[in-house]
Amino acid sequence: MAAPQIHIGSVATALPGPPIGNAELGAFFNASGMFEEWVDTFIGTRTRHLSVDLETGEARFTLADLAEEAGRAALKNAGVAPEDVDLVVMGTSMPDQLLPTTVNVVADRLGIEGVPSFQLQSGCTGAMQALDIAHQLMVAGRHRTVLVIGGDVCAKHVDVNLDFTKLAPDEMVNTVLFGDGAGAAVLTAEPVAGAPVLHRVLVRFVGRGRPPGQIVEWFGMGDRHENRSALHEDFKAIEEHVPVLGAEALEELLDGQGWQPDDVDYLMPPQLSVRMTDRIVRHLALPRAQEVSCVGDTGNTANALPFFQLELLLPRLVPGDRAVAVAIESSKWIKSGFVLEKVREHG
Amino acid sequence: MAAPQIHIGSVATALPGPPIGNAELGAFFNASGMFEEWVDTFIGTRTRHLSVDLETGEARFTLADLAEEAGRAALKNAGVAPEDVDLVVMGTSMPDQLLPTTVNVVADRLGIEGVPSFQLQSGCTGAMQALDIAHQLMVAGRHRTVLVIGGDVCAKHVDVNLDFTKLAPDEMVNTVLFGDGAGAAVLTAEPVAGAPVLHRVLVRFVGRGRPPGQIVEWFGMGDRHENRSALHEDFKAIEEHVPVLGAEALEELLDGQGWQPDDVDYLMPPQLSVRMTDRIVRHLALPRAQEVSCVGDTGNTANALPFFQLELLLPRLVPGDRAVAVAIESSKWIKSGFVLEKVREHG
Repeated sequence: MAAPQIHIGSVATALPGPPIGNAELGAFFNASGMFEEWVDTFIGTRTRHLSVDLETGEARFTLADLAEEAGRAALKNAGVAPEDVDLVVMGTSMPDQLLPTTVNVVADRLGIEGVPSFQLQSGCTGAMQALDIAHQLMVAGRHRTVLVIGGDVCAKHVDVNLDFTKLAPDEMVNTVLFGDGAGAAVLTAEPVAGAPVLHRVLVRFVGRGRPPGQIVEWFGMGDRHENRSALHEDFKAIEEHVPVLGAEALEELLDGQGWQPDDVDYLMPPQLSVRMTDRIVRHLALPRAQEVSCVGDTGNTANALPFFQLELLLPRLVPGDRAVAVAIESSKWIKSGFVLEKVREHG
Repeated sequence: MAAPQIHIGSVATALPGPPIGNAELGAFFNASGMFEEWVDTFIGTRTRHLSVDLETGEARFTLADLAEEAGRAALKNAGVAPEDVDLVVMGTSMPDQLLPTTVNVVADRLGIEGVPSFQLQSGCTGAMQALDIAHQLMVAGRHRTVLVIGGDVCAKHVDVNLDFTKLAPDEMVNTVLFGDGAGAAVLTAEPVAGAPVLHRVLVRFVGRGRPPGQIVEWFGMGDRHENRSALHEDFKAIEEHVPVLGAEALEELLDGQGWQPDDVDYLMPPQLSVRMTDRIVRHLALPRAQEVSCVGDTGNTANALPFFQLELLLPRLVPGDRAVAVAIESSKWIKSGFVLEKVREHG
């Protein structure tokens, strides 16, 4: 029997609270009047949504809250009951706890039971990793209806007592780049009229001999009071490597499908910032592809991001349309992506 | 083409430092003279290995250190070069950092590059989850030589300034139950003379409506100084549910293979403590199976544990031998296991 075609049956997302603009963010951090102009010029992100109340430091939404909301909506949009889900795969860099895993808290809340549930620890390629595992396990024939989830909530790492004026530049950039959110998709091996086919998912570790571009630590009971920062970014390395790795991922994805660059109707590019996405899109140089980006409104929501892009893309697709997504993880360098197609109906 | 048979080509493990006995552990924690007798009577674990120096609190081994050692030995034992590995899957509950993931740090150190690398966040069933994903992706035909790793290092959660005399009973139990370690196996789709065949891996989330039996938190920059405990166990729930779930997992695994209870030559049971393992083995009631346990010497090494059991088992197998492993995750309740067989050679 031939391997089944895997369809994206539905997509949904969840954001915590209202959008927070750059002026509002600057005011919270007592940043100077240059802040807004600086963000606008060098980053371009207009708003992001945060699970933490910046005034009080209170976490209003956990990752499980957002993932539950997105997962529930994805099931509803696909017309799938919880008992029909035969696998759950989630990607996140910021689980609510180490144990129980957030994927299992979410599965419990959604009423899913008796099936494998996997949670991938991952940065900006976690959604791709989750899609890859789901896709391959469906190709292997063991699963037919899979809930894929991705999300990140930075609340635990937000210190509202921070003096913004004393931050190092890379710490300052962090506060404006990232946003909280979650997304989910239902993949199905059943033939679904109008649902795009997920042809291929690519995930490749390419960090051999390359220092990490991003470090995110956690603290335990033994080292919690050491008072070092948990976050480190090498933005120069990110700016240098991400466009190159993105082009490599794109080329491999197109080669795998036998597609030419001008076959691509839509591109979902990496989304670290508006300015950097612009540079990457120019570098990828797809002649006809329309860009599908959300980073200006949501910031970089990391493991949730491809779901926000898919949510923008899916209603725009007409039969015959082909789309490519690319994501790069800078923590220890992973290139990834996927290709999908709204297949023409026959007969 | 029929799905390939998946062989366990090699297994290796790594432990940090020398074994720490109960008398030594009691002395470090200023426990009363009853301590040794209490551990001996109610737990039965004789030694465990810890990555942290109890005198200084210094972490001498990271998870990456132990996983690298086990992974390197597994590759060597299988005669597999790093460039032949086409997938790496790791399970852990205690990654060294949130990002980069430990699996990628280990892949870098071992010289693995250009392949997918997945890290599962998981408790006592992480090795089973990693084996399941590896097995299914090999069945799907995309991968033929996979490095599977599992490990846990509790160092970050060890507070050497703890006053043992003020600990709650469940916290006291924690200090004697768990040990640090890592394990690795090479799975191969090539026919390997003498290597056992991994027939089937089972992973099922069964936590719907069931409170967590184990909670392990992490702290970020925002909540690190809140001073609550990161660890909570419901040992009553664990004692009640693990034997029942273990029996369910065993039954499903045997049914899946069409094996009868007296077809099983070796049983690798859950390993929370020596006493509890004894009770579980009696409950599983396999008439002929020899028990393969390591918990008395290593403690519960969580994600590493099945590799220690496999290391004891593999040299004992003769052609025709059949073995079953069972692991239960109590954090949010997962039942899991696998079946393997040293297939008789033909011709």
